[in-house]
Amino acid sequence: MKTQVCIIGGGPSGLMLSQLLHLKGIETVVLERQTRDYVLSRIRAGVLEHGFAKLMREAECGERMDREGEIHEGFFVARGEQMQRVDLHAHTGNSVMVYGQTELTRDLYEARDRMKGIVIHQAEDVQPHDLTTDKPYVTFRHNGVDERIDCEYVIGADGFHGVSRRCIPKDVLREVEKVYPFGWLGVLSRTKPVSPELIYSNNERGFALCSLRSQVLSRYYIQVPLTDKVEDWSDEAFWAELKRRLPAEVAERMITGPSIEKSIAPLRSFVAEPMRHGRLFLAGDAAHIVPPTGARGLNSAASDIYYLYHAMLAHYQRGDDSGLDGYSAKALARVWKAQRFSWWMTSILHTFPGTSDYDKKLQQVELDYLFSSTAAQHSLAENYVGLPF
Amino acid sequence: MKTQVCIIGGGPSGLMLSQLLHLKGIETVVLERQTRDYVLSRIRAGVLEHGFAKLMREAECGERMDREGEIHEGFFVARGEQMQRVDLHAHTGNSVMVYGQTELTRDLYEARDRMKGIVIHQAEDVQPHDLTTDKPYVTFRHNGVDERIDCEYVIGADGFHGVSRRCIPKDVLREVEKVYPFGWLGVLSRTKPVSPELIYSNNERGFALCSLRSQVLSRYYIQVPLTDKVEDWSDEAFWAELKRRLPAEVAERMITGPSIEKSIAPLRSFVAEPMRHGRLFLAGDAAHIVPPTGARGLNSAASDIYYLYHAMLAHYQRGDDSGLDGYSAKALARVWKAQRFSWWMTSILHTFPGTSDYDKKLQQVELDYLFSSTAAQHSLAENYVGLPF
Repeated sequence: MKTQVCIIGGGPSGLMLSQLLHLKGIETVVLERQTRDYVLSRIRAGVLEHGFAKLMREAECGERMDREGEIHEGFFVARGEQMQRVDLHAHTGNSVMVYGQTELTRDLYEARDRMKGIVIHQAEDVQPHDLTTDKPYVTFRHNGVDERIDCEYVIGADGFHGVSRRCIPKDVLREVEKVYPFGWLGVLSRTKPVSPELIYSNNERGFALCSLRSQVLSRYYIQVPLTDKVEDWSDEAFWAELKRRLPAEVAERMITGPSIEKSIAPLRSFVAEPMRHGRLFLAGDAAHIVPPTGARGLNSAASDIYYLYHAMLAHYQRGDDSGLDGYSAKALARVWKAQRFSWWMTSILHTFPGTSDYDKKLQQVELDYLFSSTAAQHSLAENYVGLPF
Repeated sequence: MKTQVCIIGGGPSGLMLSQLLHLKGIETVVLERQTRDYVLSRIRAGVLEHGFAKLMREAECGERMDREGEIHEGFFVARGEQMQRVDLHAHTGNSVMVYGQTELTRDLYEARDRMKGIVIHQAEDVQPHDLTTDKPYVTFRHNGVDERIDCEYVIGADGFHGVSRRCIPKDVLREVEKVYPFGWLGVLSRTKPVSPELIYSNNERGFALCSLRSQVLSRYYIQVPLTDKVEDWSDEAFWAELKRRLPAEVAERMITGPSIEKSIAPLRSFVAEPMRHGRLFLAGDAAHIVPPTGARGLNSAASDIYYLYHAMLAHYQRGDDSGLDGYSAKALARVWKAQRFSWWMTSILHTFPGTSDYDKKLQQVELDYLFSSTAAQHSLAENYVGLPF
């Protein structure tokens, strides 16, 4: 098989890039290790920044998002019984879109189907080769048959555990990370969300988040020790603990119901550099991970795709390689700002075991300052809606 | 002896409060352990916030400050060869005043002399008594004679090592602190400052600061390990290291000269709560210490004095004790914001031994964000000129 751009990973990043390039007449093949059903069963992020929504529209995939997604012009930060709204729109003229990653991925698959884009599922043992030559290729096994795709570029959009990053030689690749001593226990339930806007709650019992996917689908999280297992948490125990970590007036109007998904995710900050090696370009989780506080994960992938898309266009339409050459530095500059913001949001909202009394107080003062300063709220807002690409 | 308010400590806080109260007809006595010459030989802070300068004028001590002090409407943050000006005036409509603490203390002493204010120097073994009764008194020895002052209130403005804080019972007093693994080596020299505005420099060799007391008196600092001694640093070694930590174009125009003062100060964050115990009120360093990055030390003392002054006025003029009763909480709220800011400025500008690669990068990204975001600069500026009293 032959194509121009071989994209490893059929998550939102890979599908979006494939769709954008295809619309400009650039050939792609997407290789995905899992089945489509599996990909669509993953419950992930739900808050899209303005720039991401724009990219969905440019990919001609924005119709259902614009119809069913919700524009959020603000969110709340709670601390004990205190609630402070952060007015995204007032500070930035911008907003975010609440639309589940699952829905967005579904829309991208349907768009790929409509255009007869090639997405190969259950591609096993995917392996890129000859990445530092001008004739890279990717091998994999599909339905028991060994296959090979010759291409001009390889995109590694295959997530943290994917093969792509591991193709960069150890003496070139630089990985840095920060781990957090807790995880998020998340519950999805078919209940009316307690608040039309998100509530991030700092509480001495631990962090809690009231999020949502729609006005009938709630997504709640609580901070838990890494040693906890999902089996330790009955629905009843989850709801009781969630309520204890929210202002009383919020907890009182909480509508609970059976969980339709329940999982624990550890929190991690991770960045791999460079994001380009020869003809391989990393995008999204393959190169960087943020803790979910502040909703930067999927949005950080989107900026990679935006830069890659424009770099590929410049290359194929005008023979201009400056975008490809500058991709790693440009993408990383924005990735790191999202890393900073995610770390900061995580650090001001969670409880950290073993923290000194001084640092505990410092966290509360950070919130006092945030609650009292327009400049501090402006800074939070501009990061939350997404810094410019 | 009898007075209304007995003030322990003849530094700027104690003198300023004494002067302000005296102007309103409230009697004070100031007790200072050292000689006046000793107090005036201490080289300390030099950046006064707007509110502090206003208080000096209210104390009728602002004339020379307004004549000789310099209004600074901005300062620079350097990182390697990069320089970013933070425009205090554009962001806040405000500015800071560069005027040495030594000069300011001299002005306060002269004002006290003019008004025949009582300032007793070389007061030994100062000890407050009966602070939780309505008849407190303070004993001390002066010229070999045991003395006693009966008063209505005692102000503890006697610094970190003073007796006042130690009068608060251990089961009431709560002290929290953070120590930093480095100190500042400071040099005062009679040379033209390299920059009319301050330069805070983040450098991989360590932090450096170009400050000044006037256009002929420079004050420079470099971060040094706590194990360094002043004797380890010849003037030549100091200037060479300072230059290495500044952008080349700054280092090139540096005018060096013999040091007229050279000292190493450790960096510490410290807060004691409550700031009131019975009829004792703590102010300034007696209750809180900040690292000098961001120039909050003297300014934090000024806000204590502002609150105390107004609380005393309300008490003596209107019999209203709400200001006295609310003093600790009100003062601490502002003190803690200055603590937060000082910690933040310290953490983004210094090198921290043993920091992870992720955290090193995070610091650089914090500076990238600061350099690129108007909101971030606004937040820095509003803290630097001083949050509202």
